[in-house]
Amino acid sequence: MLRTAMTLGAAGALASMAALADAQERFELPAEMSQTARMLAEAGLESDYAYEITEDLTTRIGPRLAGTPAEHAALEWGVALFEELGFENVRIEEFPLDLWTRGRSIYEEVAITAPFPQELYAISLGGAAATPEGGLEAEVVFFDSYDDLLEADDAPDALAGKLVFVNDRMERSITGEGYGWANRKRTQGWREVEARGGVGLLIRSVGTSNNRFAHTGMMSFPDEEMPEIPALAVSAPDADQIERIAAMGETITIRMTTYAGWRGEVTSGNVIGEIVGREAPEEIVIIGAHIDSWDTAPGALDDGAGIGITVDAARLIMQMLPENPRRTIRVVMFGAEEVGLVGARAYAQARMDDGTLENHVIGSESDFGAGPVWRFSSGVGADALPVLDAIGEELAFLGIERGGNESGGGPDMIPLQMLGVPMARLDQDGTDYFDYHHTPNDTMDKIDPENMRQNVAAWAAFTWLVAELDTDFRAGRDAEDDEDEDAQPSE
Amino acid sequence: MLRTAMTLGAAGALASMAALADAQERFELPAEMSQTARMLAEAGLESDYAYEITEDLTTRIGPRLAGTPAEHAALEWGVALFEELGFENVRIEEFPLDLWTRGRSIYEEVAITAPFPQELYAISLGGAAATPEGGLEAEVVFFDSYDDLLEADDAPDALAGKLVFVNDRMERSITGEGYGWANRKRTQGWREVEARGGVGLLIRSVGTSNNRFAHTGMMSFPDEEMPEIPALAVSAPDADQIERIAAMGETITIRMTTYAGWRGEVTSGNVIGEIVGREAPEEIVIIGAHIDSWDTAPGALDDGAGIGITVDAARLIMQMLPENPRRTIRVVMFGAEEVGLVGARAYAQARMDDGTLENHVIGSESDFGAGPVWRFSSGVGADALPVLDAIGEELAFLGIERGGNESGGGPDMIPLQMLGVPMARLDQDGTDYFDYHHTPNDTMDKIDPENMRQNVAAWAAFTWLVAELDTDFRAGRDAEDDEDEDAQPSE
Repeated sequence: MLRTAMTLGAAGALASMAALADAQERFELPAEMSQTARMLAEAGLESDYAYEITEDLTTRIGPRLAGTPAEHAALEWGVALFEELGFENVRIEEFPLDLWTRGRSIYEEVAITAPFPQELYAISLGGAAATPEGGLEAEVVFFDSYDDLLEADDAPDALAGKLVFVNDRMERSITGEGYGWANRKRTQGWREVEARGGVGLLIRSVGTSNNRFAHTGMMSFPDEEMPEIPALAVSAPDADQIERIAAMGETITIRMTTYAGWRGEVTSGNVIGEIVGREAPEEIVIIGAHIDSWDTAPGALDDGAGIGITVDAARLIMQMLPENPRRTIRVVMFGAEEVGLVGARAYAQARMDDGTLENHVIGSESDFGAGPVWRFSSGVGADALPVLDAIGEELAFLGIERGGNESGGGPDMIPLQMLGVPMARLDQDGTDYFDYHHTPNDTMDKIDPENMRQNVAAWAAFTWLVAELDTDFRAGRDAEDDEDEDAQPSE
Repeated sequence: MLRTAMTLGAAGALASMAALADAQERFELPAEMSQTARMLAEAGLESDYAYEITEDLTTRIGPRLAGTPAEHAALEWGVALFEELGFENVRIEEFPLDLWTRGRSIYEEVAITAPFPQELYAISLGGAAATPEGGLEAEVVFFDSYDDLLEADDAPDALAGKLVFVNDRMERSITGEGYGWANRKRTQGWREVEARGGVGLLIRSVGTSNNRFAHTGMMSFPDEEMPEIPALAVSAPDADQIERIAAMGETITIRMTTYAGWRGEVTSGNVIGEIVGREAPEEIVIIGAHIDSWDTAPGALDDGAGIGITVDAARLIMQMLPENPRRTIRVVMFGAEEVGLVGARAYAQARMDDGTLENHVIGSESDFGAGPVWRFSSGVGADALPVLDAIGEELAFLGIERGGNESGGGPDMIPLQMLGVPMARLDQDGTDYFDYHHTPNDTMDKIDPENMRQNVAAWAAFTWLVAELDTDFRAGRDAEDDEDEDAQPSE
């Protein structure tokens, strides 16, 4: 039928949706629900409060690396905000965290010393070790791709004493789908270097702009094995420079002095605020964003905007309606996301411990910048799909199309999703997201207030609908599990 | 007539051009000259050599601050290039220079310490002093504009112990005309601060992008009085942050540690290469660009591109034609431009000393990035205008319009122009020039090779025509001097 020029995956998804459409009734939202959702969305389109929240967080706190005093200040800021707005059950759920910091400063000294001496803009990756005291100077071995490194001689001394440079580029896309592939060198490259006796790793930044910023990001989860070598991302123009010199056949040496490392156990926390459900308070719709950021920027896009959007959406539901929705809306500001979803995993563990995991009826996070929502995706049981489709129709007036049912709910939703919590996602246009992601350039001026309003509109309507409905979003999940086993969390 | 919605200046210029058109004959280039100019331009449109020269300079040398070993390496690079291409009379004309450097590194440590601690991206301005040993921490006095500072209490202790922040913004334009006005705070602000007892100056970067790069640039010429205080430019997003905090009514303190300062007398130089004229070798058409750059970037746009464009244009004239043009084409790679046109002033002084100043028939520099040429402007005697107009017609097929006759020839031409040398300018589209200007982000990837080719085409045709013609570009100058006394060099 429609299979021309279609990937097998897309064709399969379409076929599966077509089968569902055949098998199931169309679901129609009651007219008054539709009207309320529309009213909330229209209020969102008029609200600059999400922008103001984001501006306040990023100005008052600035960068807020997980486990640092700045992140703690942000958690307190979150409590004060929830309380000021009248959220209920406001609290911080603390959890332990192994603290990693860059050391002295966000400015790290890295330079080509031969053949053409010049300073580089580069930055340690999260989890990297420091250089030996006094710095490290070594010859660079250039790999044009991560696959080239994987295929290189893996004798334990094959790269002894060498700095490895890996040059893969990331492709730009609305979904950011090139990120995972490009990121292999960041998350796994150090293992390949250490296994071959290398003394350090440099990568072309995982990102899509040609601005001279290096993109940091975590190498491994804090509870995994950790690198013993320094590992840094180099800005794209500096990576071009290394590439050009390597192409001349010249031997490159680089000197660097970094102070990154692990500083022992501290605490971080998740900030929680609720709108308690009027009929089924034990049923929880969980939405949120992460409140930590990298240390080099105030994290306006990543993820101050998500905090602003989800809090403002919940605020509108609380303030504009005569009564709370049926179910509880729980807004979570997750701590320690950047360093390995530590807050999200602590949250999920705590729900397993207190037996409330099954109460989570659906989850969604805003953590992909501040671009407009262009698609509404889901990861719910097959029987709930007609309801999701009906919600999607409510969002269509905002320029949002209905996506498939193989979606996660955002990075901090991964632990819950893996434990079976249904998910939805208001997919944002991320075309330029990786221009700024994890760089010093992630600042307020990158946010378009109009896009923020559109996000709030979509989130207010979506969140209220899933909290007001009595739909079991797990329904039909078992039947679908087998079909869906390929589905991967996308972040 | 056409005066509606026109500035008086533009109307005046038009009226003056109309008067000239009435008074003078139209000048027609001989057909074979027109054909040769077109052939050179078409060869330029096929040439990537300008791009390759720029790439080679910016890769092999990288940043090349005036007076440093890197600038010396660039001068030697220039000599080797001229010799390889077969230029004649290749030489370096050395001159003394007071060396200013940033000190330890291009990364300078500046941070807000209260009320909301966070590191800033800021950078010392050229000529600035260092902070006292151990750094400087002081309260900030916020001025929304430079005019506000000028109007502030000027008692010698009015700003005692304070850091002054000046917030003016620069407007974007194709001509970069907002630069001079916005730059007052950079070049003169320190005097106002010192006069009021202030201990340091911070300015919103003079630039047009919202990238988180600080734009450096010179405060004063090296032979002028010099500041005794540290003075830094702050990136636009960091300036926004300071502005927001100030708007909250909070008192801001900033801490900074910088090492900038004067290091004593060194030498710099201008690199010269010539195509010796076949009939009037003593008559000199001077073209060129500057070879030094700021220390934070390899200076691809400022001014590696200018070196590439002018050298390639001269190369085409040398290599494609059976004989040299009538007059000598002298290509100059000026040293020490960024730090106060030191090379250009040394060049002009040397010509006064050796009596060859009057031999310079016309001059032009390429120093406004790598955008396409959109306008051909001049600063010549009235009697020569028909010839300039005819040259302009030859350039029209490249999308270049004819500009007025109140133009300079580029920054390094200012000293010659002030001594009466006629000027022409191939005005480039500078709409995004001040996004990158004097920042670490001035790198090769910002250059569009197609625009480079268009520049080379225009320069090859223009340069050959003015060298082949016997026009006296000073002719009619005396009659015009009075009318033109408002004309200012625009850089």
